[in-house]
Amino acid sequence: MTKENPIERLESIVPYAPDHPFPLENLPWTVFSTPANSAPRCAVRLADQLVDLVVLSSKASTAFSQSPLSAEQARTLFAQPTLNTYLAQPRRVHQAFRAFLQQIFSADSTVFASDSQLLQGVLVPVEQAKLHLPIRAGDYTDFCASQYHCTSTGRLMFNDPTRPLEDQWFQLPIAYHGRSSSLVVSGTNFARPQGIFRTKPGSSEVEFGPSKRMDFELEVAFVVGGSASSDTEDVNALGKPVPLREAEEVIFGMMLMNDWSARDIQGYEMNPLGPFTGKNFATTLLPYLVELAALEPFRTPSPPVEHTPFAYLDHKGTGSTWDINLQAHLAPLPTTGDKVWTKITDTSLKHVYWTAAQMVAHHTVTGCNLRAADTFATGTVSGPFDEEHSEASLIEACKAGRKPIPLVAAKGAEAQTRTFLEDGDEVRITGSAYDAQSKLHIGFGECTGQLLPAIPL
Amino acid sequence: MTKENPIERLESIVPYAPDHPFPLENLPWTVFSTPANSAPRCAVRLADQLVDLVVLSSKASTAFSQSPLSAEQARTLFAQPTLNTYLAQPRRVHQAFRAFLQQIFSADSTVFASDSQLLQGVLVPVEQAKLHLPIRAGDYTDFCASQYHCTSTGRLMFNDPTRPLEDQWFQLPIAYHGRSSSLVVSGTNFARPQGIFRTKPGSSEVEFGPSKRMDFELEVAFVVGGSASSDTEDVNALGKPVPLREAEEVIFGMMLMNDWSARDIQGYEMNPLGPFTGKNFATTLLPYLVELAALEPFRTPSPPVEHTPFAYLDHKGTGSTWDINLQAHLAPLPTTGDKVWTKITDTSLKHVYWTAAQMVAHHTVTGCNLRAADTFATGTVSGPFDEEHSEASLIEACKAGRKPIPLVAAKGAEAQTRTFLEDGDEVRITGSAYDAQSKLHIGFGECTGQLLPAIPL
Repeated sequence: MTKENPIERLESIVPYAPDHPFPLENLPWTVFSTPANSAPRCAVRLADQLVDLVVLSSKASTAFSQSPLSAEQARTLFAQPTLNTYLAQPRRVHQAFRAFLQQIFSADSTVFASDSQLLQGVLVPVEQAKLHLPIRAGDYTDFCASQYHCTSTGRLMFNDPTRPLEDQWFQLPIAYHGRSSSLVVSGTNFARPQGIFRTKPGSSEVEFGPSKRMDFELEVAFVVGGSASSDTEDVNALGKPVPLREAEEVIFGMMLMNDWSARDIQGYEMNPLGPFTGKNFATTLLPYLVELAALEPFRTPSPPVEHTPFAYLDHKGTGSTWDINLQAHLAPLPTTGDKVWTKITDTSLKHVYWTAAQMVAHHTVTGCNLRAADTFATGTVSGPFDEEHSEASLIEACKAGRKPIPLVAAKGAEAQTRTFLEDGDEVRITGSAYDAQSKLHIGFGECTGQLLPAIPL
Repeated sequence: MTKENPIERLESIVPYAPDHPFPLENLPWTVFSTPANSAPRCAVRLADQLVDLVVLSSKASTAFSQSPLSAEQARTLFAQPTLNTYLAQPRRVHQAFRAFLQQIFSADSTVFASDSQLLQGVLVPVEQAKLHLPIRAGDYTDFCASQYHCTSTGRLMFNDPTRPLEDQWFQLPIAYHGRSSSLVVSGTNFARPQGIFRTKPGSSEVEFGPSKRMDFELEVAFVVGGSASSDTEDVNALGKPVPLREAEEVIFGMMLMNDWSARDIQGYEMNPLGPFTGKNFATTLLPYLVELAALEPFRTPSPPVEHTPFAYLDHKGTGSTWDINLQAHLAPLPTTGDKVWTKITDTSLKHVYWTAAQMVAHHTVTGCNLRAADTFATGTVSGPFDEEHSEASLIEACKAGRKPIPLVAAKGAEAQTRTFLEDGDEVRITGSAYDAQSKLHIGFGECTGQLLPAIPL
């Protein structure tokens, strides 16, 4: 990404601005339906269009002689309501199919050159489509891999500004199994959850009612896919840990995630078995799944190691992550006029201490099998304490309620502040990787959700 | 179950002893395959036979005029490798189909009376069948609902013989989300897992290696099924808690479970996010799923309430559970001759403080959706401290290693003891409900698994 080694750009038969977030280099995966065809089916996004892969494999079937999947195989795989079956394909198929798509949509492609009608049938303007959650995760795991998030929430929870991390934090990437049934797609709104929590932090009195400490967590989710062979959805067999050096190979791609959290319910219930109902009511994912291959130009070394881990987690100084800018904005329910967004978070995936590869190696070290479409997330991606907007959750940004966050005022309206979420608040999470020289821009889309008032039991 | 109100028995066209664990009143569900037909398909067990429901719906299709499912619907539902699609049927279908099966296999059934050849085609001797895990759980949740287990493990872990339970324990049934990919069927053996743990309990020194504290946990798993309507696999919609009074209706049945645990790995990793790799390498379920309806004669009041819970969990004195005898036996790898089993555990489901209904109400209180085939377990079903063999895990039975358990010696062999599991040890969990007067016996089968030596990384 320097002048000596600039990123070479691809040219596409579909026109778009050089810094478009969905260029031919991105091609994120999704599942969509349209008013004319309500069956959810698989697609990749190219600029402002979706490539309907079912139509492509039907109408451009002769081009599939260059594809690792026959036109018929592709039609079967992509006429499904999730990407799971495609994700279970061997990783060599994923690599070759990505290259095939980039070839047929390149500027010098012969597939569409002579038949522009064909191109029109294959492309669906994204604004005409309904986007669905593109995966059905068998299991979803949430790590807690940002040193900054874990340090600051520990200090806030225990009201001790110098509290160190638990001694196991630098030995292994801590995690818990999350709830996969309540993974929802961006745009799904949900009611404020109810539960039991302490009347005040630290109090022994408890009450039941709507959570008073609703929060978001900006996270990055990694989606598993790409077995070594083709006869199983397991990317590693039960009892066979994935070695660190092979661990990235079982990751297909990334999605942005909002791990909504009822802090008061979570805080009360989590001793000693961890978070449960405080996080199982909704976890929002984007409909776009960006392949790791698209992010290769944005690799960067992982943070320096503070404690040498055991061999199965030891990158020996060569761990790597990706520099992806991640932002969260909050907008109250507008009383009149448009929503007004306030930036809460502006951070990067590169700040996360444990690498995705380490998460895979640790997850499987006792023999746990990972299956195609299983999803594991980084935990809250907070950045260094001295960077503005580095806090990737409200509890950190408002110091557990002690320092309300000023919101940008709507025109003519009174200024508001926030500690935790109020009814009607909407949170929007965005992510992008950008190279100024080549203008290569890999976007993730917008992950949104609105908190609705509690529904009485 | 008293002389005043004896259990009326059914008579079956298939002969068996009155106290057979799989009488017509049981009819547990399973999935099986045979050497002649390797496609896994659905069945119920009747005495020593499996009823092949695909064959039944093909060959006895006229009988299906009395069934809530047409013969064609049944063929489609039961020709599948899991019970998931059947579990997603409305609960009125489950009730009516159970009645239909009991009718056509009753002694006065006309379906098979005139055609004994037909019966032979439908029944498959269980010893000729391979039994599979009959469900694919979308999510698996583990509660920790026995007061005795939680009290004693807390005391052992903190080495404090008077330590009370955490204050939230009597407010809500604590739980964590478990790993569903590593749910395995009885008979699946697995290698000793490796991970990081303290060199000695309480030490700040840690090591990496094969777990030194391998344990079992005898549990009962509840399997979700039976939506109110037929158009969704969700038994409750996201955002719609299941009220306590309706909570049992979303449970289809029960399975026995062994939640294998690497105590040392779990103990080190679980602060503050709960168990993760110490429990995600294998969790064993039986191939038999016993419908709640079969257990109705064995209902018994749940334990007295020690603290009145909030309204959403309050049975108001009328909570109920089931009296099901549960046993665990351990057998070392025999050096010569047969395995010799030692009884470790002899307890009952009735000792579990929180009811299955309370678990459902709590699991969904924040709005979490449950899907057909989702599974939640009681946690270790330990009984009262003053009852012999009441401990349902080794850590309790051997007092965290301080009191080795004598094993029954094989003929001519030296006596052995156990604290935690040694390589080659096999654990067998069994369960049955029995009424001496009517001889009604509802069996669950045998849940077995063997610990193999660790495989070096």
